[in-house]
Amino acid sequence: MSAVLQTATPRIDPDRLWDSLMQLARIGATPRGGVCRLALTELDRQGRDLVVGWLRAAGCEIRIDAIGNVYAIRPGRLGNGFEGSGPDARPTADPTRRPIAVGSHVDTQPTGGRFDGNYGVLAGVEVLRALDDAGIRTERPLCVAIWTNEEGTRFTPVMMGSGVYAGAFGLEHCLAQADREGTTVGQALAATGYAGRDTAPLFSAYFEPHIEQGPVLEAEGITIGAVEGALGQRWFDATVTGQDAHAGPTPLEMRRDALLAAARLIQEVREIAASSPDYARGTVGQIYAHPNSRNVIPGRVEFTVDLRNASATTLASMVERLHEAAHRVETTDGVQVALREVVHFPPCAFDPALVAGVERHARALGHSVRRIASGAGHDAVYVARTCPAAMIFVPCEGGISHNEIENARPEHLAAGADVLLRSMLEAAGA
Amino acid sequence: MSAVLQTATPRIDPDRLWDSLMQLARIGATPRGGVCRLALTELDRQGRDLVVGWLRAAGCEIRIDAIGNVYAIRPGRLGNGFEGSGPDARPTADPTRRPIAVGSHVDTQPTGGRFDGNYGVLAGVEVLRALDDAGIRTERPLCVAIWTNEEGTRFTPVMMGSGVYAGAFGLEHCLAQADREGTTVGQALAATGYAGRDTAPLFSAYFEPHIEQGPVLEAEGITIGAVEGALGQRWFDATVTGQDAHAGPTPLEMRRDALLAAARLIQEVREIAASSPDYARGTVGQIYAHPNSRNVIPGRVEFTVDLRNASATTLASMVERLHEAAHRVETTDGVQVALREVVHFPPCAFDPALVAGVERHARALGHSVRRIASGAGHDAVYVARTCPAAMIFVPCEGGISHNEIENARPEHLAAGADVLLRSMLEAAGA
Repeated sequence: MSAVLQTATPRIDPDRLWDSLMQLARIGATPRGGVCRLALTELDRQGRDLVVGWLRAAGCEIRIDAIGNVYAIRPGRLGNGFEGSGPDARPTADPTRRPIAVGSHVDTQPTGGRFDGNYGVLAGVEVLRALDDAGIRTERPLCVAIWTNEEGTRFTPVMMGSGVYAGAFGLEHCLAQADREGTTVGQALAATGYAGRDTAPLFSAYFEPHIEQGPVLEAEGITIGAVEGALGQRWFDATVTGQDAHAGPTPLEMRRDALLAAARLIQEVREIAASSPDYARGTVGQIYAHPNSRNVIPGRVEFTVDLRNASATTLASMVERLHEAAHRVETTDGVQVALREVVHFPPCAFDPALVAGVERHARALGHSVRRIASGAGHDAVYVARTCPAAMIFVPCEGGISHNEIENARPEHLAAGADVLLRSMLEAAGA
Repeated sequence: MSAVLQTATPRIDPDRLWDSLMQLARIGATPRGGVCRLALTELDRQGRDLVVGWLRAAGCEIRIDAIGNVYAIRPGRLGNGFEGSGPDARPTADPTRRPIAVGSHVDTQPTGGRFDGNYGVLAGVEVLRALDDAGIRTERPLCVAIWTNEEGTRFTPVMMGSGVYAGAFGLEHCLAQADREGTTVGQALAATGYAGRDTAPLFSAYFEPHIEQGPVLEAEGITIGAVEGALGQRWFDATVTGQDAHAGPTPLEMRRDALLAAARLIQEVREIAASSPDYARGTVGQIYAHPNSRNVIPGRVEFTVDLRNASATTLASMVERLHEAAHRVETTDGVQVALREVVHFPPCAFDPALVAGVERHARALGHSVRRIASGAGHDAVYVARTCPAAMIFVPCEGGISHNEIENARPEHLAAGADVLLRSMLEAAGA
């Protein structure tokens, strides 16, 4: 452990962090206390400009790549992580000289909150400010990344910027995606001034602080979640086909009731998740019955199945059990069940050493901490394909997110930023 | 038994019956072989005019009441069932002189078939023609009734004409009902020329032949259903309130999943019906989930419950069990369940002597017959509140009705009309 950590580890400024969050939240503020700042809109540009200004003021070199991801590099004693200079500078081939990064996004949902994404970026800004205040120059460079279009509400796919960075999506494909008005990502990047030409850095480590967006930490009274990984996700469209018929004249034994069969499967989805280990989740969120008339036995029902698990093997066995349940119901209910997989995200395990570090730093700071899984996707899931990564969760009120009433406590946000600071300092070498 | 029945009971003419059905089906014929002749439209007027013309040609006096019900009276040797003449003539006070009636409706669903309703009226027309051919004048008068707006798709309530006749609905209330364009029943009656001023007759007995609109007779290979009664119906709107939350970050044990709870109740509805006697039915036909997003646990689900039974007591116990199931699910799933009753139709038992007669006449004619319940409502259910009544069911293809592909076999339709003829002759006295 370095001398700095031993003797005088700096702390972030909780008020300055909160103040930055509230300043950013004014751009696109909604009457009910939330934020609407959709990706690559004029409001998103204003938000990015504000944060980029802060990062420049903190002495960062700003690089912007072709999908609009922003990389604010704070050079270290070993340089800035690049060989050469200008847009065409190439990431250093020496992994020990690459930046220690923190990142997230500043775009929001249409009725989004003040913390989702924004907190990760501004915790990074605060870390740099705290290091400036303490006069600390790290050995390796640091980087604050702002990923483009994480929310995916204006343009699909979600997590677009980090996905392009990690090679999950093609750049040209993403630039051609259009919103409902027909504006493409490429056009929106040009309009907002974020169509960059800079080569992206490679990281030696990546951290992403985030509100939990779930109820676990709050319910257990725990301040820091050391995120072990993100659950794999396999989503299905299910269609149950029976026979619609009059509810009155059709005796029970002659029915092929698609909604009754769907109801059995909805319960099976829950049973499959409840009896599976590894943070298993199973959800039916959407359902449509046809003809959806109160005195007609439904002849066709469509519903969605969302299965999640931290283990790819367990997830595969959940999928197998779903298929088995569908076959069973076909027999018992005289219906056909079609299952079509529409999303398959493999689970992501974060770097064990970084996760353990998050846990250790939280304890050293006197914060309660627990291992946790991220049930939702985050930019970190894609970035983890390129370098060791970890996430730091803090509680949010009622587990509510993607909602204007999303809320988090200043002391929790500060705790997460302090854990981030220690994690980055340790990785970067003071 | 009269001499006629013993010696030379006339038979209806199957070809003439079929031909009448097909002629009427041309008015409002749809490209896919069905009929669209909504109540009190110009097409309904054309259909009524055609049938009324046939009834006049069969020697009937036509009376039309204020809700547009048509009563075609074929006087008997004891008169026409009225005292006095003209619109203000009063139904005879002597029940033995009142008409033996047959009736149904000639309005259809928007994508309706050729037989629903029309068959009952035209079987009545055919009975009169067959009696004319045989030169039979009955002791009591006969009546063919055409009830206004049975289907209820243009104007609510359903079974409007027979409901007004039986005093279930107020005349003024029904005349004021408007369709989507704002046209009232009163205006539509005036426009079609069916705003009558005649007093309605009282019947000494009422028969209604109808396609089964269910699959039982066809599946069992039986020609005639002797309908014991119509199932009582109790309909509910159910609302399950839980808490919507992200499908990813929310562990199973912290969920209050309204759709999972609704799925349990959908199965309970089936169980309640499956374990109840007296022709029990239980159906959930309509469902809406909120916010209905594939990765959000539904926080609110609305669905309908349709319970039916031939016994009011059993039906009440089904309702009680539904409430108990709702309470159970509230406890197990941490949700609230609200049940609001929106329809309560008591069961209707038809006249045992008339039902037995239908059975006996069917056997005498060499047709297979079984007792059956009507799961759907029919004009006969209201008329049965005013006089002894019974229904005669014949099979329809696949049990399908309220559909352009509704179909029935000429020999089954003829068999039902022959049973009707014998039933009416017996009641009217030849």
